[in-house]
Amino acid sequence: MDKIPILRMGRFLLVTIQVDLYDKLALDLEADLIKMVGKTNARGILIDISAVNIVDSFMGRIISNIGAMAKLVDAETVVVGMQPAVAITLVELGLPLRGVYTALNVEKGMDLLKSKVLREEETDPDDDYAGDSSV
Amino acid sequence: MDKIPILRMGRFLLVTIQVDLYDKLALDLEADLIKMVGKTNARGILIDISAVNIVDSFMGRIISNIGAMAKLVDAETVVVGMQPAVAITLVELGLPLRGVYTALNVEKGMDLLKSKVLREEETDPDDDYAGDSSV
Repeated sequence: MDKIPILRMGRFLLVTIQVDLYDKLALDLEADLIKMVGKTNARGILIDISAVNIVDSFMGRIISNIGAMAKLVDAETVVVGMQPAVAITLVELGLPLRGVYTALNVEKGMDLLKSKVLREEETDPDDDYAGDSSV
Repeated sequence: MDKIPILRMGRFLLVTIQVDLYDKLALDLEADLIKMVGKTNARGILIDISAVNIVDSFMGRIISNIGAMAKLVDAETVVVGMQPAVAITLVELGLPLRGVYTALNVEKGMDLLKSKVLREEETDPDDDYAGDSSV
């Protein structure tokens, strides 16, 4: 299994990281996510890292990259399910997760995305999605 | 990463299979899923196998087991995202997926679960969830 599946959930995309993100897998994931945002008109990306026990600067950079790329195609990124040990490691090593939001779990992450997308649509009446009440 | 994460999405649980289901991992997943159904009052389980390229009788049995166990605690199981090659293999090998529904992708699987749960609740006014309009 050489690809991380990306699941479409309404206007958001969900990715669950279960394996170590080595180079090619991580680059493929970045590329696939951006393509998928374009294809599905997604407004947000949820990255579940509840199965991740060990975090390093590479993983931190990959997540930040995804957040930055998603931002360029007008999508927000939320990292969810972080284990306490991972949060401690991130702070102790001084590794920032730039450009992404975090939430406790998928449900809370989804709520966060909905609130962000809704707020943007309210303030931008020219947006394609304005008036779409399916959120 | 020695556990497959189970994500709670409202009243349903979502599992994405990305790694080979060897013995212990599969048994742990079964046990975790049933515990999680009890803990969260979930009414349905979605198993995404879009990252699964190869299927064998063991995997088929694990999925059928999950379906049967979930049924015992009043939850339905839907397998989603099956690759064409996997569907062909299942049929050619004569491996049935007993006790589970299938759907093209997570969204359609979620719709299927919602329709099943809703129908059950309508026909069973004593159900705890009857009158809950949050579905």
